[in-house]
Amino acid sequence: MIGLKKPDILILGAGYGGIMTAVNLEKKLGVDDANITLVNKHDYHYQTTWLHENAAGTLHHDKTRIQIKDIISPNKVKFVQDTVKEIKTDDKRVVLENGELTYDYLVVGLGFESETFGIKGLKEHAFSIRSINAAREIREHLDYKFSQYNNTQREDLLTIVVGGAGFTGIEFVGELANRVPELCKEFDIDRSKVRIVNVEAAPTALPGFDPALVEYAMEHLERKGVEFRIGTAIKECTPEGIVVEKDGHVEEIKAATVVWAAGVRGNSILDASGFETMRGRIKVEKDLRAPGFNDVFIVGDCALIINDEINRPYPPTAQIAIQEAEVCAKNLASLVKGNNELEGFTPDIKGTVCSLGEDDAIGVVGDKKIFGKTASVMKKVIDNRYLYKLGGPSMVLKKGKLKMF
Amino acid sequence: MIGLKKPDILILGAGYGGIMTAVNLEKKLGVDDANITLVNKHDYHYQTTWLHENAAGTLHHDKTRIQIKDIISPNKVKFVQDTVKEIKTDDKRVVLENGELTYDYLVVGLGFESETFGIKGLKEHAFSIRSINAAREIREHLDYKFSQYNNTQREDLLTIVVGGAGFTGIEFVGELANRVPELCKEFDIDRSKVRIVNVEAAPTALPGFDPALVEYAMEHLERKGVEFRIGTAIKECTPEGIVVEKDGHVEEIKAATVVWAAGVRGNSILDASGFETMRGRIKVEKDLRAPGFNDVFIVGDCALIINDEINRPYPPTAQIAIQEAEVCAKNLASLVKGNNELEGFTPDIKGTVCSLGEDDAIGVVGDKKIFGKTASVMKKVIDNRYLYKLGGPSMVLKKGKLKMF
Repeated sequence: MIGLKKPDILILGAGYGGIMTAVNLEKKLGVDDANITLVNKHDYHYQTTWLHENAAGTLHHDKTRIQIKDIISPNKVKFVQDTVKEIKTDDKRVVLENGELTYDYLVVGLGFESETFGIKGLKEHAFSIRSINAAREIREHLDYKFSQYNNTQREDLLTIVVGGAGFTGIEFVGELANRVPELCKEFDIDRSKVRIVNVEAAPTALPGFDPALVEYAMEHLERKGVEFRIGTAIKECTPEGIVVEKDGHVEEIKAATVVWAAGVRGNSILDASGFETMRGRIKVEKDLRAPGFNDVFIVGDCALIINDEINRPYPPTAQIAIQEAEVCAKNLASLVKGNNELEGFTPDIKGTVCSLGEDDAIGVVGDKKIFGKTASVMKKVIDNRYLYKLGGPSMVLKKGKLKMF
Repeated sequence: MIGLKKPDILILGAGYGGIMTAVNLEKKLGVDDANITLVNKHDYHYQTTWLHENAAGTLHHDKTRIQIKDIISPNKVKFVQDTVKEIKTDDKRVVLENGELTYDYLVVGLGFESETFGIKGLKEHAFSIRSINAAREIREHLDYKFSQYNNTQREDLLTIVVGGAGFTGIEFVGELANRVPELCKEFDIDRSKVRIVNVEAAPTALPGFDPALVEYAMEHLERKGVEFRIGTAIKECTPEGIVVEKDGHVEEIKAATVVWAAGVRGNSILDASGFETMRGRIKVEKDLRAPGFNDVFIVGDCALIINDEINRPYPPTAQIAIQEAEVCAKNLASLVKGNNELEGFTPDIKGTVCSLGEDDAIGVVGDKKIFGKTASVMKKVIDNRYLYKLGGPSMVLKKGKLKMF
């Protein structure tokens, strides 16, 4: 290979998919093999799956985020802090807010956006738990609304509506149920005046989960004061709250805080850049490349992977993104080294655990249903295992969830 | 006195004047001498002079407030948590939100209200540091506005306007100057983007203070990033900020947070109850009774005391309120015991210290000007001395400012 230009590998986004691709590439390629560049809006990576805790105020965001310089070595991966605007596949360029970069191989890990399905007012008046900045604003919004209560006696200040009782919605109300008593103490408020209302249009909470687990989750959350409105659609979000409908009956719920946790889609930059997508997600080839592009890999929430068993897409998760990053890095290393036989990706779903707050959770590990403390500890084990992959034992010590029992 | 009905002493308000009257009466009268009742909106007393720290977020409000049950003995003083609506002097009744009480002797310690001098929009759009609830809302408002910045890039979110560079205004900007770097760290904001603007209509900051002390204060606060607009009047407050005028030049300052710390007046309940007042304050007789009423004493911010040396009112302070409470309690005890020769009140101004944040202050003690660390320690000594009067050494240990050096 002497005399040939080293290929430029450009990774867009430092979420689970992007950062783990970089970490894996660091191990697989030497500095003489390729120039690797990672572009990200912030100088930190964050654990998207912990954001609901930051938003509820039960975990500080500095625990959730990790400086990129603490993960990747600047000798091996060049980091550029900038915002991606457009991908120009025709001439292998990426337009950034403050410049542009070219590539020989591109990895797109630009993450999710909130999907509001055209529900009126949601975009304008509801929060979405999409980033550290957004989560922090939700936390402060809650504090602020509670702080206003004793000066106004407006009860809508103490009503929190969460749209969606899927994975994120349930995990978020679980944290809220733990946080609310703390907020009541801080702001001299009677707990019985606070409402946490979880609205779900589907006929069940946690669709896809085992009914026994769903029952456990709802019962435990209801005992902590969560009100469920299942089979109930949000028709509109206004500055005053939401309008819901169930079986033709329309009702307004006045609420100073509405958080939309019901829908995600891939990054709209992909549509704008001319890729063919389904809600912003690209249905990738087996080797994780975008159809028709042998130099563009897609990882994380922008990649659509079909579960052949049921012929439906896998829901985008951190678990899948991390597994994709391994295959993606392996395939990139092969290409760089002149080997065009790439590996196919198949998700290996080891389990799913949905937290219900600090010490409670439900989940499936293998074929086994788990509940309560066991599930809660399992959740922390999964989180810590990721940190280990990301930065070894020191990262687990620094950012891990170590209070297990 | 055997066979006679015990007189009812009713104290309205548990601020410095009211609570200290109760504390002093507890010592001077036995349970057989009188029925003493204290009415207060909240079940806690608070140190009004510390509220600016709670509002800035540099001190938690639980340090500033003290449960009334921890100060007065229920055997000696009956506590009623209620809000005073009107005083009916004709039939010696006080109307409360949830009932009414009669009295033989009344002590009015209902405190101050914000005085906006008719400036348009101040009442609607500016905060005032008037209570624990208000201070807590200001703290949360600041946090919330900072948390919104990275999602919007709106620079007005980071501009804090403080109206008034008198005692409270200066003490508040001093705390803000210490708090802002912490807020910047918490919310990933460049300190240089934050503005603290202190606007004062008078030709100097801290009118009445020695010019050398004023210069010291302004210089130190400017070094910490406070912008002063002296000789500048606030013409209007809007949802977007304030409009100021200096020498005919009008300017708009966009600011998401405006705190009005420039004017106080006595409680408007006094006007509504038919007392003759000057901005809600009653010019009391030498013995602290309201003119024309031999059964109504006024203490604290509702009492107007003339400084004979300059023929102008003393500014209402905690120091004076605490001294008034001693004389008021002594005079009440005399009346109860059938002695109609009451003591006259003359303030004994031992000194005045104005804090400039955690470790800095200016002040006058006796004839001596003090600065910096010395003044800051003196301020804490004064605060702790009050706590000692209120509840002895255990109160100092629990709520005192003990980190002196």
